Amino acid sequence: MKDIVHDAARRARDAASVLALATRAQKDAALLAAADALVGATDRIVEANTADVEAARADGTPENVIDRLLLDADRVAAFAQGVRDVAALPDPIGEVVRGSTLPNGLRLQQVRVPMGVIGMIYEGRPNVTADAAAICLKAGSASLLRGSRSAQRSNLVIVDAMRDAIASSGLPADLVQAIPADDRSSVTHLMRARGLVDLVIPRGGAGLIRTVVEESTVPVIETGTGNVHVYVDAAADLDMALDIVLNAKTQRTSVCNAAESLLVHAAVAEEFLPRVTAALLDAGVTVHGDDRFQAVDGAVTTATEEDWEVEYLSMDIAARVVDSLDDAVAHIRRWSSGHTEAIVTADLDAARRFTLGVDSAAVMVNASTRFTDGGEFGFGAEIGISTQKLHARGPMGLPEMTTTTYVVTGEGHVR
Amino acid sequence: MKDIVHDAARRARDAASVLALATRAQKDAALLAAADALVGATDRIVEANTADVEAARADGTPENVIDRLLLDADRVAAFAQGVRDVAALPDPIGEVVRGSTLPNGLRLQQVRVPMGVIGMIYEGRPNVTADAAAICLKAGSASLLRGSRSAQRSNLVIVDAMRDAIASSGLPADLVQAIPADDRSSVTHLMRARGLVDLVIPRGGAGLIRTVVEESTVPVIETGTGNVHVYVDAAADLDMALDIVLNAKTQRTSVCNAAESLLVHAAVAEEFLPRVTAALLDAGVTVHGDDRFQAVDGAVTTATEEDWEVEYLSMDIAARVVDSLDDAVAHIRRWSSGHTEAIVTADLDAARRFTLGVDSAAVMVNASTRFTDGGEFGFGAEIGISTQKLHARGPMGLPEMTTTTYVVTGEGHVR
Repeated sequence: MKDIVHDAARRARDAASVLALATRAQKDAALLAAADALVGATDRIVEANTADVEAARADGTPENVIDRLLLDADRVAAFAQGVRDVAALPDPIGEVVRGSTLPNGLRLQQVRVPMGVIGMIYEGRPNVTADAAAICLKAGSASLLRGSRSAQRSNLVIVDAMRDAIASSGLPADLVQAIPADDRSSVTHLMRARGLVDLVIPRGGAGLIRTVVEESTVPVIETGTGNVHVYVDAAADLDMALDIVLNAKTQRTSVCNAAESLLVHAAVAEEFLPRVTAALLDAGVTVHGDDRFQAVDGAVTTATEEDWEVEYLSMDIAARVVDSLDDAVAHIRRWSSGHTEAIVTADLDAARRFTLGVDSAAVMVNASTRFTDGGEFGFGAEIGISTQKLHARGPMGLPEMTTTTYVVTGEGHVR
Repeated sequence: MKDIVHDAARRARDAASVLALATRAQKDAALLAAADALVGATDRIVEANTADVEAARADGTPENVIDRLLLDADRVAAFAQGVRDVAALPDPIGEVVRGSTLPNGLRLQQVRVPMGVIGMIYEGRPNVTADAAAICLKAGSASLLRGSRSAQRSNLVIVDAMRDAIASSGLPADLVQAIPADDRSSVTHLMRARGLVDLVIPRGGAGLIRTVVEESTVPVIETGTGNVHVYVDAAADLDMALDIVLNAKTQRTSVCNAAESLLVHAAVAEEFLPRVTAALLDAGVTVHGDDRFQAVDGAVTTATEEDWEVEYLSMDIAARVVDSLDDAVAHIRRWSSGHTEAIVTADLDAARRFTLGVDSAAVMVNASTRFTDGGEFGFGAEIGISTQKLHARGPMGLPEMTTTTYVVTGEGHVR
């Protein structure tokens, strides 16, 4: 398996060195051809997917996981359109990030260039295959796609369709390669292929991400886990706070930018706690509260430290009264996964202190945490949301999939 | 030792959370006080250093390594001035990297914020202690400084002087901490303190860097190794090429931006090889050449694959004739460490193809490779030269020691 993965990585490097010299027009033509090929292969994709779904059902996979795996003609058309949308985005390659003429006359330019070879390790949804391949190609890189074993048949048909289209457009098919998902060792070899692979991005559950982060020797961007907080300040508009809490918690619960914890300033607790507790319970949310919340309604269960830490991804919320903004910040610094926090306040200085005090990829002031998203931010395409501080933080679009090089031009300058 | 390192990291986190709210004026005042304290502690620093040097000599340390360890009043004054220079640089924190108003009225800003806690693992030179502490503090981060055991006495006095000054200026002393260098386990605990330490930067020999890259679970920026190439193109001005080769190889040999390999296009080999070989030999350089170079002068030794790969850091150069620019690019892609490559050419398209084709942190066109340097680039301060593609590539100044956060402001926006 090591040879298979390393050979794929070497072919990817060679393909990437060709792509480094390609124009935007060539890349866009390849992407549009790939989108057409995906639509053309709809029947084959759905057929392979049916086999994946049947095997997953036979293994006793729960229906919510089956739903993520499932493809139909509409879903294929949607990710084919996603590939077209990536083609329509500006090319990040060649952007001059900064530049100046040095005192000695040397012209210095920092230019955006391709990353090279990007490994994606992901679970479940086969649409990630087409998304990731398209984003990497547009950003000038070859992709090594290691999806889940359960989606392997679907992924292979998607990759084959894209490879054929890319080759027919004149670029190397090896810009997009599937890594065998038969056994776990392919993940290990991919994330330890330092020197052959430039970047690995894990997308999936907390266990997968932790494994990759701890065992990879290839640089990793950590994505996803969101223990997201909403803090209702002493100076909050409480109607607005109620809207934001309900939206952040209930609009969609399975996503990383959904709220998992609610902190309420003591000064507004007497007025706000009954309202927010009733509204959450009415909406079907289980409230895991401290003693102040429990005193409001007998249906509130007791919160433990585990509730402060957990990412529920379900209709549950942890809830606590804090004595000050500083206490809210301290709670968040202690328990947050660093994804998104929100403050509801009319007080400008409270907003400033909260924004500077928490240490997360995104801070919402008087807005729902659900806005932390590449699409909402206008990036056009998103390959994940980084919760680490190195390289990229928050939603990642095309520029985050590139690196830079310094180009220095002189007329025989020596030191 | 694990407890000692983790306790230091926790104190660093607390100190960093105070620093996140400090103004530029407070940071600069602390740095200027630290610079004064270093000058005031000159006698104590030199005394401690004398003990380090005596112990190193007793261990049989070679004199070139002793020279890097050695401090006198002038060297202390130089790094104290370096701390003042960092204070004078613009504050990277708070810079709005990008911003826009989204179609729904949300105001989106990506703002530069502190990294948090930065671990430095380095060898030899005790001036790195003051440099790194100052750069991290100015960039809003606490530093955990793990220098070499041989410099431990010097480093402790430097750190103590800076800590006292920082505390007297009103910021937490724990912004600067020395990690015990008595045994190697402190390196392991530092680089595996994921969640407590945000970034680790190794500076030193290839062995140290490889160990940190392979074993760290904290994100790492790889620095330094430079197998640097100069390519003399068919369209080169050969006088210019001669100047650049000699400067890149001989002006200073122990640095990562010195040239280690020379590639000459076959079209100019007949004219250029005798000139460059004679000039290099005259300058005292040992030339490890292919058969074309060996045919020029019997003093040229035989180059093996090892010569294409090694970073000599000495008066040695590997030398080869290539049949085309593409062959030069292929050689460099195969053997380079990705630091700096130079092309000497008068041909604009050759410059373009070389620049796009090689895959390194810096590309020099008609200039010496010795210019890849934070000082030369006008960054004012440099914490190392990154040879990886993630986060920072090339010389790293203050902005590269920060991360960003998205601040999104609304008026009760929900999805």
